[in-house]
Amino acid sequence: MNIRQYMIVLLIFFSLSTHAQNTQVRHFPTPETVSTQILPLVSGEPASIWNDHPKTNQEWKNWVNQFAQHSIQQLPALRKQMQVTVEPVQFGGINGFIITPKQTRSENKNRVLLHFHGGGYVLNPGEAGTDEAILMAGFGQIKVISIDYRMPPDFPFPAAIDDAVAAYREILKHYPANKIGVFGTSTGGGITLALMLKAKAESLPLPAAIVVGTPWTDLSKTGDSYFTHEGIDNVLVSYDGWLGDAAKLYANGEDLKDPLLSPIYGDVTDFPPTLLFSGTRDLFLSNTVRMHLKLRDAGVTADLIVLEGLSHAQYLMVPDAPETKRYFNESSRFFNHYLAQ
Amino acid sequence: MNIRQYMIVLLIFFSLSTHAQNTQVRHFPTPETVSTQILPLVSGEPASIWNDHPKTNQEWKNWVNQFAQHSIQQLPALRKQMQVTVEPVQFGGINGFIITPKQTRSENKNRVLLHFHGGGYVLNPGEAGTDEAILMAGFGQIKVISIDYRMPPDFPFPAAIDDAVAAYREILKHYPANKIGVFGTSTGGGITLALMLKAKAESLPLPAAIVVGTPWTDLSKTGDSYFTHEGIDNVLVSYDGWLGDAAKLYANGEDLKDPLLSPIYGDVTDFPPTLLFSGTRDLFLSNTVRMHLKLRDAGVTADLIVLEGLSHAQYLMVPDAPETKRYFNESSRFFNHYLAQ
Repeated sequence: MNIRQYMIVLLIFFSLSTHAQNTQVRHFPTPETVSTQILPLVSGEPASIWNDHPKTNQEWKNWVNQFAQHSIQQLPALRKQMQVTVEPVQFGGINGFIITPKQTRSENKNRVLLHFHGGGYVLNPGEAGTDEAILMAGFGQIKVISIDYRMPPDFPFPAAIDDAVAAYREILKHYPANKIGVFGTSTGGGITLALMLKAKAESLPLPAAIVVGTPWTDLSKTGDSYFTHEGIDNVLVSYDGWLGDAAKLYANGEDLKDPLLSPIYGDVTDFPPTLLFSGTRDLFLSNTVRMHLKLRDAGVTADLIVLEGLSHAQYLMVPDAPETKRYFNESSRFFNHYLAQ
Repeated sequence: MNIRQYMIVLLIFFSLSTHAQNTQVRHFPTPETVSTQILPLVSGEPASIWNDHPKTNQEWKNWVNQFAQHSIQQLPALRKQMQVTVEPVQFGGINGFIITPKQTRSENKNRVLLHFHGGGYVLNPGEAGTDEAILMAGFGQIKVISIDYRMPPDFPFPAAIDDAVAAYREILKHYPANKIGVFGTSTGGGITLALMLKAKAESLPLPAAIVVGTPWTDLSKTGDSYFTHEGIDNVLVSYDGWLGDAAKLYANGEDLKDPLLSPIYGDVTDFPPTLLFSGTRDLFLSNTVRMHLKLRDAGVTADLIVLEGLSHAQYLMVPDAPETKRYFNESSRFFNHYLAQ
């Protein structure tokens, strides 16, 4: 090789490494400021799942089932630890689960929380979507109904939001709106917010309060932290992994900025009091704070909590971690404050 | 050159570029989600100041004066725009400025806000420290007293906090504590929080509410976003620029984790209601959220607002930007809610 050839090799190498930087996982010193319980997650390598790209419907289903089976294996121990029972149920034709704590706090005996699970509109079908609901029922000592909304590839948009509204309508037959709270993380937060838009459009009474953890408020790649936290968040890592594919699979050709897909583009006037969570490394930090600011601009009571050191939704992953307890205890307090008894 | 020599050159090049990455300014697509007014700041290159390292006392003074002169030139236009008058004053031997709006809102006529400016305990002496106070007086239509606390190299810790307490004591002679609010950004937020610790220790009544914008709560390099947002924040860029030097200059050999230097290590029980601000790119995001979480743990009313796309304290830099108005209007509302009339 001569100098010219070496220069070319060098240039190719640099252009490749510049490209790789866009999806590169970044590493940082072990933070002293997160709990020891959650530290292994915070300082761990991301699971390679983030960059999976299922191609066919069957590949999506296989991919989803693989993770669902893993999740379901954890549930018996979690139910035991949280002292809750879970039974399948149908609400107006929609599948769901009723999660009942062994002890219900006296002020919660006439209240119910409606839950939508996360997973990018593709993951966590059936029982696999109940973990957050189990934790909320246990920490909050309150009944939770978790909705197993339909998902793509078989049931793309608007199936999930249609199911959310149908379930909410059914629950309204049994509980007054002022004793109902709604919550969810990630996609579950997005559905919670989209449900408010749809309930307004259909003139349904809104629930007393909602909690949205790192909500997917913008399915298009819009929002600062999609870029600044790429490679920093070790759960989602990048919009350009499975996440962006899931957005398109769910949207099924509809505009990603449709407010029922991306509630950040909706009219949030008259929304109920809303508590939002994120983390300092969260790819969805902007999804969260943009909605927080929009709610405040609309005159809605909206509180924000950002958890130190955490990537997307890590507060769900270690039941014993103080960060997890904070999410559930702050949420329970918020519901307790705003729901009628 | 032979292949071996080229490999060595290549290795040196890579090791240099790896090292440079630690303090490298990162670049992102222009965000669609910040205002057009503040966009030039958000998408701009950082001023090279971030990596200045003054060595001697005289170098520090020259460096500080250079920026102070620039700041002071902007003030006449800002005072005119905000319709305020500024007069120098002394409070119990401490230098300060009284900022009086042309119109005071009727509910504010018996209230006062105490302000501490930012600048890493070294920048913004004298009038140069009054810009945030001018904006608050103008947006909130309320009287503000801005304290020109002493700074290193001549007056290191605890001069600043001693001056803060002396000024607060003096103001307590003229206003009941429940009609006083205290606020500041960055170092000004840190001083505000340290003042609460010191006031508690001296059994002074605490003010009705405080607002701390991206407060410097930890002068040691502890907290996740010192690392994750290094090179993302285009104002401070890195703790390892002038910022860390300023921490050491101010601390003057004292432990950086002394609570009066780093209030995150103090006992925040019984603090007044606190509103905290940060930005999604802020190097001090963790300084902010750690204090927010600590206050909530102590049972203090503490609200957090994180501004989309902003680096450290950029909400102070463009008076006409919606982000700026949000900081001052949310702060004014917060004070109005908690201060007695």
